[in-house]
Amino acid sequence: MEIKTPTLLIDKEKCIRNIDRMVSKSVKAGASLRPHFKTHFSGEIGNWFKEKGVKQCTVSSVSMAQYFASHGWDDITIAFPYNTLESNEINALAQNIKLNILIESTESMEHASKSIKEKIGYFIKIDVGTHRTGVDPRNETLINQLIADSSEKIQFKGFLAHAGHTYGCRDLDSIKWIFDGSVKILTELKKKFGGIISYGDTPSCSLMDDLSFCDEMRPGNFVFYDWMQHQIGSCSLNEIAVCLACPVVAIHKERNEVVVYGGAVHLSKESMIEKDVRGKDKHCFGKLVKLTEDGWSAEILGNVERLSQEHGIIKLSSEEVARVKVGDLIGVIPVHSCLTADLQGHYLSTSGEKIEKMTKN
Amino acid sequence: MEIKTPTLLIDKEKCIRNIDRMVSKSVKAGASLRPHFKTHFSGEIGNWFKEKGVKQCTVSSVSMAQYFASHGWDDITIAFPYNTLESNEINALAQNIKLNILIESTESMEHASKSIKEKIGYFIKIDVGTHRTGVDPRNETLINQLIADSSEKIQFKGFLAHAGHTYGCRDLDSIKWIFDGSVKILTELKKKFGGIISYGDTPSCSLMDDLSFCDEMRPGNFVFYDWMQHQIGSCSLNEIAVCLACPVVAIHKERNEVVVYGGAVHLSKESMIEKDVRGKDKHCFGKLVKLTEDGWSAEILGNVERLSQEHGIIKLSSEEVARVKVGDLIGVIPVHSCLTADLQGHYLSTSGEKIEKMTKN
Repeated sequence: MEIKTPTLLIDKEKCIRNIDRMVSKSVKAGASLRPHFKTHFSGEIGNWFKEKGVKQCTVSSVSMAQYFASHGWDDITIAFPYNTLESNEINALAQNIKLNILIESTESMEHASKSIKEKIGYFIKIDVGTHRTGVDPRNETLINQLIADSSEKIQFKGFLAHAGHTYGCRDLDSIKWIFDGSVKILTELKKKFGGIISYGDTPSCSLMDDLSFCDEMRPGNFVFYDWMQHQIGSCSLNEIAVCLACPVVAIHKERNEVVVYGGAVHLSKESMIEKDVRGKDKHCFGKLVKLTEDGWSAEILGNVERLSQEHGIIKLSSEEVARVKVGDLIGVIPVHSCLTADLQGHYLSTSGEKIEKMTKN
Repeated sequence: MEIKTPTLLIDKEKCIRNIDRMVSKSVKAGASLRPHFKTHFSGEIGNWFKEKGVKQCTVSSVSMAQYFASHGWDDITIAFPYNTLESNEINALAQNIKLNILIESTESMEHASKSIKEKIGYFIKIDVGTHRTGVDPRNETLINQLIADSSEKIQFKGFLAHAGHTYGCRDLDSIKWIFDGSVKILTELKKKFGGIISYGDTPSCSLMDDLSFCDEMRPGNFVFYDWMQHQIGSCSLNEIAVCLACPVVAIHKERNEVVVYGGAVHLSKESMIEKDVRGKDKHCFGKLVKLTEDGWSAEILGNVERLSQEHGIIKLSSEEVARVKVGDLIGVIPVHSCLTADLQGHYLSTSGEKIEKMTKN
């Protein structure tokens, strides 16, 4: 397939290896794998997991649950606080599949008890330190209340946590410190209140050896990985399975810059702060790599320093800039593959096949 | 229409007033208005411009040109460096409509001369200081070369500039300083080489009184405006015509936070840096407002301080947090309306009608 516009390339072999590794890890941990599909949004990529024996998945919205249910997934957890406004849609889904939702307040629990007519499961979302959502694990009164409302119809399943603060880590010790804290919190809750432990963030699941404390692993990003995960230490450069192919549209040798068709509406404005040669902060919106016959090479050749809506401005060395021509296709490793994937209408495999995905309507 | 998920509300009356104001400004300047449609992506909103006598538009990609051509626009400028890989698509478009492209290098010009088979116009993109794309205005050798290649088929139209560095301004004087510099550069080029001047960025076009130096105005964002434009000074809070309606899914009174269904895949990760009460930097990904019967009130009640993929974390006062309930709908004024609009499958007018837009496939 000829590439003319910014196109997200997916290296299926790398994805399969990333899936294999996580499946092995879950087997070793004696935990089931319920991968988060908010990274790839794709029925076809979901099938790559199915072929490895994965039967359950996690999503972050009701519409994503609808999409994956329509692609044959019949056991789904919506890992997002129960949206009371979508109770009808949740009921409709729960008629056909095994569905779990997240609860973190008595208000939500009361609403669910009244409005949910079908049999569903619920997890109590526990805040293990990210302070985004979830119940403070020390708040046993609230936990007791939320479990007391469990019924034949709305069944308490256990405790679910996402240690999203590992995304701020840049070394193994800090990730291990967060992980150990979460293990302690969740193990104690399970001992005291019963239920299962559902855990998952890509850094912990990639880097921690022993995940046997949990019953279910829910990482998502690992299927693709990205520059941020590489910087955290979750993956090698070679394990990153996505790359945005971008046409070069202008070259400014006088400032060692290449301008590509590939901007905020393709990569997203997610960025990381890095140090330039003089020790000053600079933004990174992605990393330049060379496209090859069957993918891309794992050598970083430049930095996407600025993004506007459709433009990416890439800084590179004067030697590299001399090699680039208007009309070339270059590769950009995204900072955050989930957000880049969300922005695409479809993907392209490195062997040239179109990969369908969920789109917005 | 019942809102259950993050939905971009469009206040049509405000849009019409914003369009009216810019049309008057162009009439006063004796310039034609060729608004940039990369803000709204919508055939229907395009019609609101048509009803005000606007007959030409600007887009930022070939696919956007195809979309608006299919919605009856027959005079379009693609204000993005000529993507040589899309010459066939450009030829197909130019068979049916008046089309202009941007050129900024001899490589692009040579490619266009060889590959473009239909009659089209081209502008030389001039860098007036943004240093994103464009020819250095002092490089008269290059300008001469690019004009020399003008032909009956590929016609030189003039000079086009976008003073995107006004987006970094926070006061009128700095915008005026950038504007005066651009006027000088472009007026001299026109005098020396002929052609027309096409100019446009929303801050300059909103704030400068006298735009008579240019022949064509190309602002885009003004139809919606947003928090960034308000901070620049381009618009009042009341002139912002878009607001993301978001369901409240969790409340954390202990830290004065409300969690909404409305994250990076709805608002985009565009942010601004603001000072908190202690003078420390904090991020702003949007501003909380109250939704009303027919839109939203223009009082800012909180700040979207963090965004993950589907979650928005809003800081507000303890008085305000006490008023919010799970299941409420609240409004978020986006930081950058163009990127927020890009992320929607459709819009909803404040009078309850669905507004179709371009989507990715």
